[in-house]
Amino acid sequence: MTASVPGSVPETLLDPSRLWEELAREGERIVLLVIDGLGGLPDPVIRRSELEVARTPNLDAVAADSACGLIEPVGPGITPGSGPGHLALFGYHPLRHRIGRGIFSALGIEFPLEIGDVAARMNFSTVDDEGHVTDRRAGRISTEQGTALCKKLTSQVEVEGDADVEWFLEPVREHRAVLVLRGPDLSGDLTDTDPHRTGVAPRLAKGRSDGSEKTERWVRSFVEQCREVLVDETPANSVLLRGFDAHRGLPSLEARFGLRGICLAEYPMYRGLARLLGLEVAPRPEGPEELFGRDLRRAWPDAGDLLFLHYKPADSRGEDGDFEAKVRALEQVDGLLAPLLELEPKVLVVTGDHSTPSRMASHSWHPVPLMIRADTARRDRVDRFDELSCAAGSLGLRPGLDVMGLAMAHAGRLRKFGA
Amino acid sequence: MTASVPGSVPETLLDPSRLWEELAREGERIVLLVIDGLGGLPDPVIRRSELEVARTPNLDAVAADSACGLIEPVGPGITPGSGPGHLALFGYHPLRHRIGRGIFSALGIEFPLEIGDVAARMNFSTVDDEGHVTDRRAGRISTEQGTALCKKLTSQVEVEGDADVEWFLEPVREHRAVLVLRGPDLSGDLTDTDPHRTGVAPRLAKGRSDGSEKTERWVRSFVEQCREVLVDETPANSVLLRGFDAHRGLPSLEARFGLRGICLAEYPMYRGLARLLGLEVAPRPEGPEELFGRDLRRAWPDAGDLLFLHYKPADSRGEDGDFEAKVRALEQVDGLLAPLLELEPKVLVVTGDHSTPSRMASHSWHPVPLMIRADTARRDRVDRFDELSCAAGSLGLRPGLDVMGLAMAHAGRLRKFGA
Repeated sequence: MTASVPGSVPETLLDPSRLWEELAREGERIVLLVIDGLGGLPDPVIRRSELEVARTPNLDAVAADSACGLIEPVGPGITPGSGPGHLALFGYHPLRHRIGRGIFSALGIEFPLEIGDVAARMNFSTVDDEGHVTDRRAGRISTEQGTALCKKLTSQVEVEGDADVEWFLEPVREHRAVLVLRGPDLSGDLTDTDPHRTGVAPRLAKGRSDGSEKTERWVRSFVEQCREVLVDETPANSVLLRGFDAHRGLPSLEARFGLRGICLAEYPMYRGLARLLGLEVAPRPEGPEELFGRDLRRAWPDAGDLLFLHYKPADSRGEDGDFEAKVRALEQVDGLLAPLLELEPKVLVVTGDHSTPSRMASHSWHPVPLMIRADTARRDRVDRFDELSCAAGSLGLRPGLDVMGLAMAHAGRLRKFGA
Repeated sequence: MTASVPGSVPETLLDPSRLWEELAREGERIVLLVIDGLGGLPDPVIRRSELEVARTPNLDAVAADSACGLIEPVGPGITPGSGPGHLALFGYHPLRHRIGRGIFSALGIEFPLEIGDVAARMNFSTVDDEGHVTDRRAGRISTEQGTALCKKLTSQVEVEGDADVEWFLEPVREHRAVLVLRGPDLSGDLTDTDPHRTGVAPRLAKGRSDGSEKTERWVRSFVEQCREVLVDETPANSVLLRGFDAHRGLPSLEARFGLRGICLAEYPMYRGLARLLGLEVAPRPEGPEELFGRDLRRAWPDAGDLLFLHYKPADSRGEDGDFEAKVRALEQVDGLLAPLLELEPKVLVVTGDHSTPSRMASHSWHPVPLMIRADTARRDRVDRFDELSCAAGSLGLRPGLDVMGLAMAHAGRLRKFGA
């Protein structure tokens, strides 16, 4: 048979979010509650997951009144970092918008990145007399030490040549810092100096494309000077850089889907990401109680089209590898939901950015429960918000990218496609 | 590891129907029954959908003997018009074959469109003394009035210049009409004159690309002259145009998949679409009884590779917002199935082009039940043809585009891929 469909391939075929852009219109408010690291795995003895063990009457009641399903945030077998996991939920295809760790690290400390800035994640590290890395984290020095060392480097390092490059070195926590370069002709296409293992020397930063020569030269000189300034420090006598990227910015949620809104989040990374997407960011709460209580009540009247709530501890306790503590975190967020439910949001979406099974003590690729409560939700027989219950829901197993399109549809925010 | 998959992106990666073209061969006949607007939503009180309430012993018996699942006709959150919903079912990716409302309107009255014709949907409308639209539908004038006004315009409007443009103005129903232009150098890339709201003047048609100047000029002059001819009419004293598109045609089902066949449908839109795909179209039936009875018996012996049956009332009653009437429509089509089942089609596919929940009184994005009965179908435990039962079926949740590929496979019409 002959193949004869004419025309080039439209972008909408590759990425449904391009179609939502086309069809977007005004509608109801969407509430998106992200329980970070929501999904888990059954404990090998009791054979139930954290969500299955946790008593979550509020989440279960919402599930009974919702369409339920599972999402695969980025793709089959792919363990998402927090960045791609969240980008997907907001309707940004995580494979089209690949953002380096350096940028996320800068967002994470709410550094005011400008378009064109190049950022890298920096670790203070330990090298031996032969220059081989013995500790990629310099014994996890204290935040105070890290901060003092950043100050020392900022005042003493002078990179030769390239005087038009402005640079910023900001402490993050413990041995972590962020390096930001600003100036003409910079490139984010550079290899890591971090060898990602011990017993070998740090690598030389290498430009990976035309136009990265200047940045390569600058970074090599910077690293050398850091070594000289730190030579007598113990244990933080050197630095490792990784995740170079240039800040290209993102089209805002408002520009793409007409969504103005607000973010309620405790952790800087998510606050920075929300800002990157053009959301307003409410003042930082003291903790989840304040976020789901006072801050939510304050934000609600003027929350606009999209209210994004982020709950972190489920991920943190999963990363700790502490099953019981993750169960308690899930019970905590469940217990905090009453004020949100009393506001009766028209469209309520609850999901996570990835799974963090405490058995693995890390992010994982496992699908994440999803529920959407709205007048137009196709209620199913799921009345328990956990991995296996949601697998039987009416939303099926879907890419994480679908979430924002479905939410917009339920909010009446997508016009009909075609006649 | 380094990413190193070489080569450009093949079209088959983006659109599986391109692969079916490659692999198509002769096989069994496929029967495709489209129950328009099949899917629904639970009634908020009884918490069951139209399909769940309807007594459908025939559909349920087929479901018990089939592989069942759900389709998302166009994409997540996307509410399909009838055109894209059907194109997907026939294996035409609805995002690659975007067909304007004007073309569908012309197909809907079985206007003999030629390649290159430009068509637009026209409404008779009312404007006030200042030229502002007060009613986009001219009080929904009667079909007789609309027909008379189309005749009047056809005889009295003379567009200046561009004598090589032939035009046709055909009434549809009530205030609706279709305008078709034929001639050299025409373009379908024109903006609507319909402002899509009242209280403002109609817009000037604007060409959106090089080569649309002539059509822009012609349409502007046409609209002006219509206004002059209609100036003393009440309430239809003006016209609004929208959905301009050029008729580019489509590669036929025969050219793509080797499928010759016949369409049994009552409504012009689906008859026109079937013709566009190269199907024979049986004479228009008086109603569903005739379609599923006499017409089916007549068509069967020479139905070729694909028999397409279209049942409309489920959608119409859903659009009316009448839950009970939609239930009755579903029971009606169920009751009409006996003659079809007696013919023992080798491959029987039953699905819909989109959901039309009576609660929404409109098309919607919700997934649509699907079942495929064939010797090679992987029968599952689904024995009820409704939304939630099918969600548990062996076909899973899939794009609507998959339907034709699966049907061809069950009909033995797709060769093995690769050695």
